[in-house]
Amino acid sequence: MVQNSLRQDADRIISGAIDAVRPDAAVKRALAGREFPGRVVLVAAGKAAWQMAKAAHEALGERIGSGVVVTKYGHVMGEIGCLKCFEAGHPVPDENTIRGTQAALDAVDGLTEKDTVLFLLSGGGSALFEKPLISLEELQDVTCRLLACGADIVEMNTIRKRLSAVKGGRFAKLCAPARVYAIVLSDILGDPLDMIASGPAVPDRSTCAEAEAVIKKYRLRFSPRVTELLQEETPKELDNTETVITGSVRELCSAAAGICSALGYTPVVLTDMLCCQAREAGSFLGSVARTHAGQGERMAYIAGGETVVKLTGHGKGGRNQELALAAAEAIDGLDAAVFSAGSDGTDGPTDAAGGYVDGTTMAALRGRGIDIFDTLADNDAYHALKAVGGLIMTGPTGTNVNDVAVVLVR
Amino acid sequence: MVQNSLRQDADRIISGAIDAVRPDAAVKRALAGREFPGRVVLVAAGKAAWQMAKAAHEALGERIGSGVVVTKYGHVMGEIGCLKCFEAGHPVPDENTIRGTQAALDAVDGLTEKDTVLFLLSGGGSALFEKPLISLEELQDVTCRLLACGADIVEMNTIRKRLSAVKGGRFAKLCAPARVYAIVLSDILGDPLDMIASGPAVPDRSTCAEAEAVIKKYRLRFSPRVTELLQEETPKELDNTETVITGSVRELCSAAAGICSALGYTPVVLTDMLCCQAREAGSFLGSVARTHAGQGERMAYIAGGETVVKLTGHGKGGRNQELALAAAEAIDGLDAAVFSAGSDGTDGPTDAAGGYVDGTTMAALRGRGIDIFDTLADNDAYHALKAVGGLIMTGPTGTNVNDVAVVLVR
Repeated sequence: MVQNSLRQDADRIISGAIDAVRPDAAVKRALAGREFPGRVVLVAAGKAAWQMAKAAHEALGERIGSGVVVTKYGHVMGEIGCLKCFEAGHPVPDENTIRGTQAALDAVDGLTEKDTVLFLLSGGGSALFEKPLISLEELQDVTCRLLACGADIVEMNTIRKRLSAVKGGRFAKLCAPARVYAIVLSDILGDPLDMIASGPAVPDRSTCAEAEAVIKKYRLRFSPRVTELLQEETPKELDNTETVITGSVRELCSAAAGICSALGYTPVVLTDMLCCQAREAGSFLGSVARTHAGQGERMAYIAGGETVVKLTGHGKGGRNQELALAAAEAIDGLDAAVFSAGSDGTDGPTDAAGGYVDGTTMAALRGRGIDIFDTLADNDAYHALKAVGGLIMTGPTGTNVNDVAVVLVR
Repeated sequence: MVQNSLRQDADRIISGAIDAVRPDAAVKRALAGREFPGRVVLVAAGKAAWQMAKAAHEALGERIGSGVVVTKYGHVMGEIGCLKCFEAGHPVPDENTIRGTQAALDAVDGLTEKDTVLFLLSGGGSALFEKPLISLEELQDVTCRLLACGADIVEMNTIRKRLSAVKGGRFAKLCAPARVYAIVLSDILGDPLDMIASGPAVPDRSTCAEAEAVIKKYRLRFSPRVTELLQEETPKELDNTETVITGSVRELCSAAAGICSALGYTPVVLTDMLCCQAREAGSFLGSVARTHAGQGERMAYIAGGETVVKLTGHGKGGRNQELALAAAEAIDGLDAAVFSAGSDGTDGPTDAAGGYVDGTTMAALRGRGIDIFDTLADNDAYHALKAVGGLIMTGPTGTNVNDVAVVLVR
């Protein structure tokens, strides 16, 4: 058997795992054999919105009477029939978000109980499908403050739902009496439906009390208007919705395990619910690599989920890049690699999907005078990895089911 | 097969793993079948010095002609034959350190090539085995200035070795022509021999040129005496020494794995080099538990090493208690346990060895009105775990080979 380089193996594992969770096939599976008696209005929101809408349009064609797609800048790949496509801000919503979301609300206005809203949701939907009940500036301020204090996505959504006209089941309520058929690519660990894109079409399980707890945990202070909205409860029952989940991080991990196995590594899926700090997860996985490298066995340890970045600097990077870079020191000089990528192909505000390090990375960084501790303290993993060829570039993938981190040792 | 409770299993795993790395058994293993032709002089230094010396004396009896034990205050448990026992300062050396070390140097003086110095080293040896070539005051001043300018541990040791009569291989040189047989209980991850107690009996890899570079880097100015000492090279070759590592976190983990196996769990040793933040390691291991609990398999995931506590409050706790408590939320309601303990039986400034949580812990904490986030923010894991019976108590064990954390799922 020809020995691939660790980097080649890494690229195959990432691209193969992502292929397995692409939206096209998933959406078509969810639509197969379904009949829609009345009018069909399509509303797609999220980073995979365009691909999901395209797949739905290929499956249903002229049955779709009208519709709206809201996705991230650069993610509209062309026209889809009669659908109106919007590109908008992510992770921070902007004026185009509101414009796109308002167009969706106009499209579902005046439907009857025979009609269906085909609602295609994917990761990023929280930011991309939004009509805030406060000003965009204030919403941005709230979001930035939640990100900066290290709040996780569940906590963020608990707050943001209450500041929105469409989240936490409120969109489905606006669609009534029409039925809502939601097809979801899940980007939240454990697939809690009311958290995916902040659950526009499912009864909201989060409560005002939980929102209160988040505020307490991070010692946050908001304006009187926000404080008031956080006390308004979201819909707890909806009888016009049905939801099916078609992709998730569990599938991403098991696909990665399958490819590792095909490449001759014994795969061990550690978790598909990783949620700790990115650089600490990198340190942990670096320790795993260092313990098992050079023991004569080809092993692959896989951890799926979504880590959080603790902001301590002003550099450029993303959670996957930071995780990988934080593992570099532990595997210095070893026949091991640690890499991590977002299934959506975009890690933080960068053009990379994630980061890759192996036993040669530390020497390469030293050779360029790059100090790894300074780099991590400045949250600047992007430039360090770029300098040593450690960025994983996939381009936007059209899917978004969290991240996968992998340790390879030989 | 009778089902043990998870807590019973946890207690068996911890006590069994610690038993396997107690100094007595370890030292006796390392001495089994060994012949010493000439005189045997015993020198033991470190926090486990007394236990190691006692075990050696039990194994060799009158074969030991003389010897010296230097350990921490309160760690001498009685007389051992003809050995002179000293208690001294830790982590900062004091006059008793010098007195004990000088007694050891006197004991190894005038030996022949047939003779053996049985050198028993354990954690804390860097402070407890020391004879500075400058005054203690000046040594403390040098140490403080290195700390103040941000020198790392490698840079510190490069300087300090040259200011010592015994470090960096110099002790072995003073023993020559006698042979040195060193038995080491390692408390440093990865067992770098020249770092353990600053390597009194191993060739030194650091050079005068590197010491010079440290001085230049931080623009330090020292007294003429220190400047002169920094130009004296440490031994780069030693042909009279042999070292065996008998206790280390690796053995702690494999012993834990053996007991897990005997209890019906399939063990997976993730790492024996864990070094990330305690609460993030707890979150990571909680994610592992949550992914695998209730899948019908009895699994045990084991991670050894030494995490660090990020101080954000003023409560009472230790790294093992904090790790365990940080895993509680992820396994809430599941048939899973996460626990962690220090092999020395003392976790932080507490009387507990570590902490234990399982699927019932969150409910028990809630029932007592204890908020887990507040508790972690205040570094107060001890009181929270104590309230719900989650402390692991072993008492001081006399060994010190880092910590072991375990996830059990069924």
